[in-house]
Amino acid sequence: MTELSRIGEFGLIERIGRILPGAPTIIEGIGDDCAVVRIFDRLMLLSCDMFVEDVHFRRAYASPQDVGWKAATSALSDIAAMGGTPLFSLVSLACPATTDSAYVEGLYHGLANAAGQAGAIVVGGDTTMSPAGIFIDVTVVGEVIGNRYLSRRGAQSGDLLGVTGRLGLSAAGLWALDNGKNAPVLVAAHYRPTARISEGQWLSGCEHVKTMIDISDGFVQDAEHLTEGDRLGLEIDPDSLPIDADLRQFCQEYGLDPLDFVLAGGEDYELAFAIRPEDGEGCLAMFRREFRTPIHVAGQFTNQWQGVRVAGRSSPRTGYEHFRK
Amino acid sequence: MTELSRIGEFGLIERIGRILPGAPTIIEGIGDDCAVVRIFDRLMLLSCDMFVEDVHFRRAYASPQDVGWKAATSALSDIAAMGGTPLFSLVSLACPATTDSAYVEGLYHGLANAAGQAGAIVVGGDTTMSPAGIFIDVTVVGEVIGNRYLSRRGAQSGDLLGVTGRLGLSAAGLWALDNGKNAPVLVAAHYRPTARISEGQWLSGCEHVKTMIDISDGFVQDAEHLTEGDRLGLEIDPDSLPIDADLRQFCQEYGLDPLDFVLAGGEDYELAFAIRPEDGEGCLAMFRREFRTPIHVAGQFTNQWQGVRVAGRSSPRTGYEHFRK
Repeated sequence: MTELSRIGEFGLIERIGRILPGAPTIIEGIGDDCAVVRIFDRLMLLSCDMFVEDVHFRRAYASPQDVGWKAATSALSDIAAMGGTPLFSLVSLACPATTDSAYVEGLYHGLANAAGQAGAIVVGGDTTMSPAGIFIDVTVVGEVIGNRYLSRRGAQSGDLLGVTGRLGLSAAGLWALDNGKNAPVLVAAHYRPTARISEGQWLSGCEHVKTMIDISDGFVQDAEHLTEGDRLGLEIDPDSLPIDADLRQFCQEYGLDPLDFVLAGGEDYELAFAIRPEDGEGCLAMFRREFRTPIHVAGQFTNQWQGVRVAGRSSPRTGYEHFRK
Repeated sequence: MTELSRIGEFGLIERIGRILPGAPTIIEGIGDDCAVVRIFDRLMLLSCDMFVEDVHFRRAYASPQDVGWKAATSALSDIAAMGGTPLFSLVSLACPATTDSAYVEGLYHGLANAAGQAGAIVVGGDTTMSPAGIFIDVTVVGEVIGNRYLSRRGAQSGDLLGVTGRLGLSAAGLWALDNGKNAPVLVAAHYRPTARISEGQWLSGCEHVKTMIDISDGFVQDAEHLTEGDRLGLEIDPDSLPIDADLRQFCQEYGLDPLDFVLAGGEDYELAFAIRPEDGEGCLAMFRREFRTPIHVAGQFTNQWQGVRVAGRSSPRTGYEHFRK
């Protein structure tokens, strides 16, 4: 008997990957943010994300609209991470028979709003009974423009690591909720993240950007996924990451280190990507003219070693992995 | 506060339908077996089905391969009910960290086998932690050939009700398991149903067949869904439904009425459809030359009244509805 707590989410995904057969129509299978498949000579993106009560959300903390919004955003963000365009969404919901219908309707309002903001529509799904707890699975079907998408592979030694947005606010918002502290900006970042759809499309269309991922489980851990397929190392320079003013002030007040949230926080739904060093800064300058979303260089890939180092030191496990104790 | 147990699954679906916006690309939205959407000027089918421990399956009764097989079949059957061709599948799995990895691998073997038998491939999904219980959500993306599919609407007064297969075996198999009786054929029907993909495609291609549904929650209840959109009545003739020999013998042995399982049993995953009366028997004869799957006329639609009658009497609620006590 091998408990999932021993092999963790990543160990399990590897085992599942060995079971599932490949096919010529599967361009990217299990292991990336989305599956990429060929339908009618076009590339489509397929992604799903399960959102679980008391794992991903607590009913006491958030409104049902917030929970629905975030469940949808989490799935939409996987489409953003490939540079894709979300089209349609399905929702499967399991909840106890004692659940208030108004709560469930609130969930669907949140789901429909997040999908709508990303340009997608919820077209159906399934509702079923749960013995305990609410489980929301959101599937998104998307497309890529001109057969161009960004997988988790493709970085080369010397490439720069870019990242959108300001990191760590969502995790600090959760800390505030868990500890009964007042922090409206951080809590809003936790409840109402944005899937970076337009930004992802723009970066995917930029020929100098080679690989991309969304930051759902923690910046360091997710950035490390960009090194694995290409057996690279990644040096992250924490000083290059701007700390949000609200986050800094909050951490000062409660004696916390903002970098803990920035590097390992999770649920930022920002995008991390590799970009050619000679074109990096120019590309980022163009991005800044196009979007109000911040963007920064935060590290560099190398073939001298493997894994991630933060300020020159090997990083411990700094992110969220399902099933791990 | 309105508990879901008061409005039931169908009441909830109606409320959700009022929340979700429509769009010109949605050909069939919430309320049918699948969503039908337009992508690249082709019609695609999108379906998902959540399979829940202690609601849809018990770990003590079934092997993980059986559970995975049935979870996939349940979702694939929705594609069959439209006359579609399943292409790709995604699986979201939530399970406790204490789950044995071998159990989860067994689930994926079952899922991949059922998908493979139906001509589809599992291309990815999500794995996440569950505080208690296993939740499996299977999404299937399919296509329809030549823009022809069968929805739940389109029956007319006088049309015959056709049905594939022999009904009631799965529910009797579950009864045998619940009561510790030995009934290998019935239990196999319960564990390893088949999605009627080829049969559904054939029926959808037959110009005399007008509307179709799969029988997942009970024959009478699901057949009634074929009357709702067209405000028709449906007279079911129970004598026209052949009783499987194993089912008959089992029921005799334990003093049960086989018709209870046939009419209300559920999880048959057979197809019920409306067919023009003048062409009905000829069409069924052609079907019988093509397939070994049994097929029968089991009733007739009318505009004289609404709802379902079985042998001339109004039927009570005879099927499974989530959330209802």
